[in-house]
Amino acid sequence: MEAVRNKQVLFRGFITAAPKETDMEFRVGTAELRIPEGFKGVLVKNLYLSCDPFLRSRMREFYNSYIPPFTPGSARTIRQSLCSDFLACDRYFCSGVVEGFGISRVVETNDKGFRPGDLVSGLTGWEEYTLITGTDRLRKIQVDEKIPLSHHLGLLGMPGFTAYAGFYEVCSPKKGERVFVSAACGAVGQLVGQLAKLHGCYVVGSAGTKQKVDLLKNKFGFDDAFNYKEEPDLAGAMKRYFPDGIDIYFDNVGGATLDAALLNMRIRGRIAACGMISQHSLSLKEGIHNLYMLIPKRIRMEGFIQSDYLHLFPQFLDRIGDLYKEGRIVYMEDMHQGLESAPATLAGLFSGENVGSRSSVFAENEEAADLFIFLIFFHVGRTCLSWLL
Amino acid sequence: MEAVRNKQVLFRGFITAAPKETDMEFRVGTAELRIPEGFKGVLVKNLYLSCDPFLRSRMREFYNSYIPPFTPGSARTIRQSLCSDFLACDRYFCSGVVEGFGISRVVETNDKGFRPGDLVSGLTGWEEYTLITGTDRLRKIQVDEKIPLSHHLGLLGMPGFTAYAGFYEVCSPKKGERVFVSAACGAVGQLVGQLAKLHGCYVVGSAGTKQKVDLLKNKFGFDDAFNYKEEPDLAGAMKRYFPDGIDIYFDNVGGATLDAALLNMRIRGRIAACGMISQHSLSLKEGIHNLYMLIPKRIRMEGFIQSDYLHLFPQFLDRIGDLYKEGRIVYMEDMHQGLESAPATLAGLFSGENVGSRSSVFAENEEAADLFIFLIFFHVGRTCLSWLL
Repeated sequence: MEAVRNKQVLFRGFITAAPKETDMEFRVGTAELRIPEGFKGVLVKNLYLSCDPFLRSRMREFYNSYIPPFTPGSARTIRQSLCSDFLACDRYFCSGVVEGFGISRVVETNDKGFRPGDLVSGLTGWEEYTLITGTDRLRKIQVDEKIPLSHHLGLLGMPGFTAYAGFYEVCSPKKGERVFVSAACGAVGQLVGQLAKLHGCYVVGSAGTKQKVDLLKNKFGFDDAFNYKEEPDLAGAMKRYFPDGIDIYFDNVGGATLDAALLNMRIRGRIAACGMISQHSLSLKEGIHNLYMLIPKRIRMEGFIQSDYLHLFPQFLDRIGDLYKEGRIVYMEDMHQGLESAPATLAGLFSGENVGSRSSVFAENEEAADLFIFLIFFHVGRTCLSWLL
Repeated sequence: MEAVRNKQVLFRGFITAAPKETDMEFRVGTAELRIPEGFKGVLVKNLYLSCDPFLRSRMREFYNSYIPPFTPGSARTIRQSLCSDFLACDRYFCSGVVEGFGISRVVETNDKGFRPGDLVSGLTGWEEYTLITGTDRLRKIQVDEKIPLSHHLGLLGMPGFTAYAGFYEVCSPKKGERVFVSAACGAVGQLVGQLAKLHGCYVVGSAGTKQKVDLLKNKFGFDDAFNYKEEPDLAGAMKRYFPDGIDIYFDNVGGATLDAALLNMRIRGRIAACGMISQHSLSLKEGIHNLYMLIPKRIRMEGFIQSDYLHLFPQFLDRIGDLYKEGRIVYMEDMHQGLESAPATLAGLFSGENVGSRSSVFAENEEAADLFIFLIFFHVGRTCLSWLL
């Protein structure tokens, strides 16, 4: 039996503040490249691993989310299972390895749906080799040389699909409407803004650095953008960019930005709550003060999770893949090489240090058999520090 | 020209706290019972006037609501106009008289849609005689001896229609769902709960006195009810009544009750925000802390205003009128005689003193030519004190 090196990132224990590098542990173990007796699934080599903010929600003990917490502890050499149903927590075996979305190559399989060499995307472990037994949500990737493989974790993966489902299914957009996107340089936000522009909307984004603001205006084609850190009066800033109010607010941040947007919404406006509402109940005691605006403005505010819309995924892949290949949308990601950098990269998402700034994935370096990390663009800073804490 | 006595309640000036009796002025003037040259409309004698919480929102200078503020000042003997379109503020002439919903008898008319003696309901003044020139939203009442005339201000008026439109159009109820209603003894809440029961739902209400809790259980047929003032842990109380969570929360109060309900919602739950979200931004700085729950629970929260659904009003009148006559729903209102009592009655809505506790209307005493006030049941106390401030 061949035993190979298996780098891993372990989750040390539940946290109540922003994740720190030391909340995770990098270690080098070994893996046997076979599926243990009694298990059905695929053994994969992970090529790219995505570093997403939702991972923070799995690092708290409090289980009141759509996805169960990680199990702290030491890793087994080969993971036992990855649950395919986020909500069926009792079917979920955790192994101590951080889990997230990844792109992997099938090494061995006893699941008839897969063959060795298949490229797949889905939930996997932050390690080099993973046994995935819950394969119903594992997707086979059709390689297209015009689309970077890593884009299946961003533009054509969970963040891109979040933008797609959230914008079209939750926001009910109409041509000519005024759209505001926070964390607009993020993995989700950059696509929301571009889809809104293609839909004929007026689009303004907020971000936390001058560089991101420039990207929004010059690369992603937003009508305008502003740096929320330079706006002590956020509501006044929005009024400047939306003198007649906001029809659609795609909320990636919650907190003060949401509070200010509530004051600027138009009648029958819609707010898509996309995974980042500040969980102040568990840390800071700041709250949302302008929620009463829902009533005179008849606002619909709706939380959503992309996995509720998976029936639209094939349509999404076709449409967004085509738009990308036609050059009508662009996408930016930031790649880090090596699983060693993963704990710092995840911590950086929440520290506001990713000035530049990115999305996160690890990628296989075919030569070195290493992994890379993408750090998805984020509207970081005060707001980011508080979400999902 | 006949000049008659015209009692009036004037609005003195904008306020930032809960309304006090002294924010209004009762006076006795005179009115000439004719329509002045150049005006088209109906001159009415007011029979019943409703004392509703939304009046508070018209007592602040800040205009960011669906209905414009009152104009403080002295009254004219005969009012010039009542706007038929809440949102077209510039068409709205204010006279200094408090305005609200009323039931009136047409005394004189030069509007072909009305004849002297017609009974009408709509926005009118807190006075004995009012000239209404915006008649498009004035409704003629078909008298039914089995339905008290005053019920056209409550059960069959704005509060009843708010319950009807909010429950059926905003809450998307399904048989068997679990429904929570706050301010459940209120003019809106008591009907929401009964409609939910008729729809096959499990219904629990909250209120602020033992007497109201008893009424909810024994008169309005709720499955259960609790006194929120006796529950220091509101979220825990809700968990007791909804161990499997809440599908629909009909929110009449906002604040701490909303925050606790957010923690108890079920996946794909709905929250109808019905006019009472605490406007803490303008007074207390308390906020809503659990809004992040919208996301993992995919909650839809929607503000609404009954006037957006007026196309359903005829259907509502038929259905609710029939249910009432069949004895399948009941309704309670509290009547006060005489316009003199109106300022104290409105202030009482916000002071928590209406223990008992009611809805508000004035009514004509045919003998004395006086008016009565109904004080609609309310979930008062801390929460009530803060809403619409």
